[in-house]
Amino acid sequence: MHNHPHTTPLRIAIAGLGNVGASLVNLLASAQSRGLNARSSRPIELVAVCARNKNKDRGITLSSSMLWCDDAVKIANAPNVDVFVELIGGSEGVARTAVEAALNAGKHVVTANKALLAAHGNALAALAEQKGVSLNFEASVAGGIPIVKTLRESLCGNSPTRVMGILNGTCNYILTRMEAQSEPFDVCLKAAQELGYAEADPTFDIDGFDTAHKLSILTSLAFGTQIHSEIQTLEGIRSITYEDIAATRDLGYRIKLLGIAQRIGNTISQSVQPTLLPHNAAIADVGGATNAVLIDADFMPSLLLVGAGAGGNPTASAVAADIIDIARGLHILPFGQSVAHMPVVLPAQADAISHRYYVRFAVQDKPGAFATIATHMAQQNISLESIVQHGQSSSSGIAQVILVTHKTTAPALHKALDAISNAHILATKPQSMCIESL
Amino acid sequence: MHNHPHTTPLRIAIAGLGNVGASLVNLLASAQSRGLNARSSRPIELVAVCARNKNKDRGITLSSSMLWCDDAVKIANAPNVDVFVELIGGSEGVARTAVEAALNAGKHVVTANKALLAAHGNALAALAEQKGVSLNFEASVAGGIPIVKTLRESLCGNSPTRVMGILNGTCNYILTRMEAQSEPFDVCLKAAQELGYAEADPTFDIDGFDTAHKLSILTSLAFGTQIHSEIQTLEGIRSITYEDIAATRDLGYRIKLLGIAQRIGNTISQSVQPTLLPHNAAIADVGGATNAVLIDADFMPSLLLVGAGAGGNPTASAVAADIIDIARGLHILPFGQSVAHMPVVLPAQADAISHRYYVRFAVQDKPGAFATIATHMAQQNISLESIVQHGQSSSSGIAQVILVTHKTTAPALHKALDAISNAHILATKPQSMCIESL
Repeated sequence: MHNHPHTTPLRIAIAGLGNVGASLVNLLASAQSRGLNARSSRPIELVAVCARNKNKDRGITLSSSMLWCDDAVKIANAPNVDVFVELIGGSEGVARTAVEAALNAGKHVVTANKALLAAHGNALAALAEQKGVSLNFEASVAGGIPIVKTLRESLCGNSPTRVMGILNGTCNYILTRMEAQSEPFDVCLKAAQELGYAEADPTFDIDGFDTAHKLSILTSLAFGTQIHSEIQTLEGIRSITYEDIAATRDLGYRIKLLGIAQRIGNTISQSVQPTLLPHNAAIADVGGATNAVLIDADFMPSLLLVGAGAGGNPTASAVAADIIDIARGLHILPFGQSVAHMPVVLPAQADAISHRYYVRFAVQDKPGAFATIATHMAQQNISLESIVQHGQSSSSGIAQVILVTHKTTAPALHKALDAISNAHILATKPQSMCIESL
Repeated sequence: MHNHPHTTPLRIAIAGLGNVGASLVNLLASAQSRGLNARSSRPIELVAVCARNKNKDRGITLSSSMLWCDDAVKIANAPNVDVFVELIGGSEGVARTAVEAALNAGKHVVTANKALLAAHGNALAALAEQKGVSLNFEASVAGGIPIVKTLRESLCGNSPTRVMGILNGTCNYILTRMEAQSEPFDVCLKAAQELGYAEADPTFDIDGFDTAHKLSILTSLAFGTQIHSEIQTLEGIRSITYEDIAATRDLGYRIKLLGIAQRIGNTISQSVQPTLLPHNAAIADVGGATNAVLIDADFMPSLLLVGAGAGGNPTASAVAADIIDIARGLHILPFGQSVAHMPVVLPAQADAISHRYYVRFAVQDKPGAFATIATHMAQQNISLESIVQHGQSSSSGIAQVILVTHKTTAPALHKALDAISNAHILATKPQSMCIESL
């Protein structure tokens, strides 16, 4: 039996003592006072840590008997370590080398590293399987939300059809603030940086790469396909203006940066882009730095999980769950099945999906502009649900024209927008976002 | 290794072929065509079913080689059965006898039966532990929402402080409809019955017993205490009028029947009652027959799960997850730890919790009524945040007076309300509901 109490402790090494690592040290150290020891079946003992600077004040207390070193590969190989916890980050370099070393040495690995999994998840899962050890990564997607376990275990009697998520707290904070404070993008980005939600170089978050990494992991878990990190549509939130926020709100929608994966026949579509959601949907109400994942599956039509997607404590909560699974003997293959049985992704054709679209044009106020727009849309067989002229500035001679289309495909829309752009009636590049049905 | 593919099938018996049982038969039968077989590590084979009427059309196809009988205890004991799935329902009688028989025979049990667990969960968990078999019950609370696994596994590095849930779809449907359609309780109950959301005898749902059973299970999982099904405060939704719906909406709240468990020192409070939630909170937006659970824990401050809490397919999804856990060798103690290590619940004192309260009085329009109300409130040290007179009917001479109190305890409020009731200024019994902070 696996979860009869063992007396042998499970020995943990943590590589990386940033926010998450420090929270995890505190979580493990306080387990007894918080009454949690009986749940883990056997004692969990922190035996080694690895970070660059030993003397930095992290608000944690480490026992003097603990191995401290600055070489992650060394503690990944240390003979007294059962579980190697990788909190270093990055898809290459020491994080990858150390995780591979730990798996090769027959040690369980727990990681929060979405970039590593997006790039090398298939190979690492195969290695873990070959060595008969766990490779757990709950914390890699949506922080403290148990989305990995939900897809890998709780929904595994289902064939999911769509997974969508608000997976980047920085972007969601910026979009929420743009709406709440009526502030432009740049001001909100700066505020996010001052609050520590955004990095000095925000590219990774706001251009959608972080969401794409996380989405590729969710896609594998949901559809049983190998990780395929080349997301077909990848767009961030830089181009969103306050005009977009206001116009979409007036139409009854809210803009969210969504990662969406869906099955279309035997193909899979993965996209990351700003998307309009109906204002009254629960997922559209998820504000600030909070994350959310919505899963549609054949027997469970709509399951929504909402919670903290980042931060030291919530992420440590997910890492701890992965460790306690190992302590309890709950060993499962990294993606719930053998990598050898998981097909590679056949990416869906760009025109396989239809959406209604929101389009905003900044139109130079000349006669015939509406007619030009309508004509080029009609040439691509795009019919219009509504067309509104928004707040014309007479001084600039520029009018904001807002369209909502009936269902069409991205290629058809982009052909129409290119033709309209070439007609020299627009002051700026047209803005367009798809409207997702729930 | 546990989840290397086994070739030996896991043999399942299902007792009870209502909606959930029929959906489960379809789920298992279609697993191959839905591409799910690789996930379960080994084949899952339905070898026996048990229901009263063999000839009823349930929309399912059963193989002719399958054992069919009307004796659940017989299939619980059948030598070719590995997992006994109990979908009969009820805390006593054949459901209990058959589950005990299966556990005693060393078979794994999967059940959706909250009444059975609320009444006998401690003893059944101890028996499963003694026999070294699984007793899985994901489907017993909130249907297809994976709340059991989330509390038992995903949050087990946390010490939760509060769990609250919308756990009864019938009540939530009625309350949502009362608000949306401006209809009284009786009309909405009838509509719920016509739609199949409510039983002919709706007592079990609308008086809160169903919510109480589910809450007692969540309490055990969250706080690591033995099941204690004597909920201290148990109130249903019968007394809620359309006046309450309208008045609370005007105040910025929405009424939900909530089960709430919280830790107060070394005691636990469990309550089921109509509760006011801030209108803009995500959980307050959960409408219709949908369920939701919100967990506050020390490392994961706020995790919300929303989805279908009943119905054949969603519930079958949860039962299937429990079965696949067994097929994959994911064996865990029923409550995640030994029953012998789980303390009994020390119920919290009634005055240990303070809330703001909403109170509605139907006041006979006599001079001095406001003064009488305010005086009796003051005598219990209850100060008032707001007091509004709502829509007086001049013909009846009755005015609706709506109060919101500052924080007070239930015993103090009830003393004040009793004194006001005895002052002969009210046309009907006063209505009161607590306001929960999020």
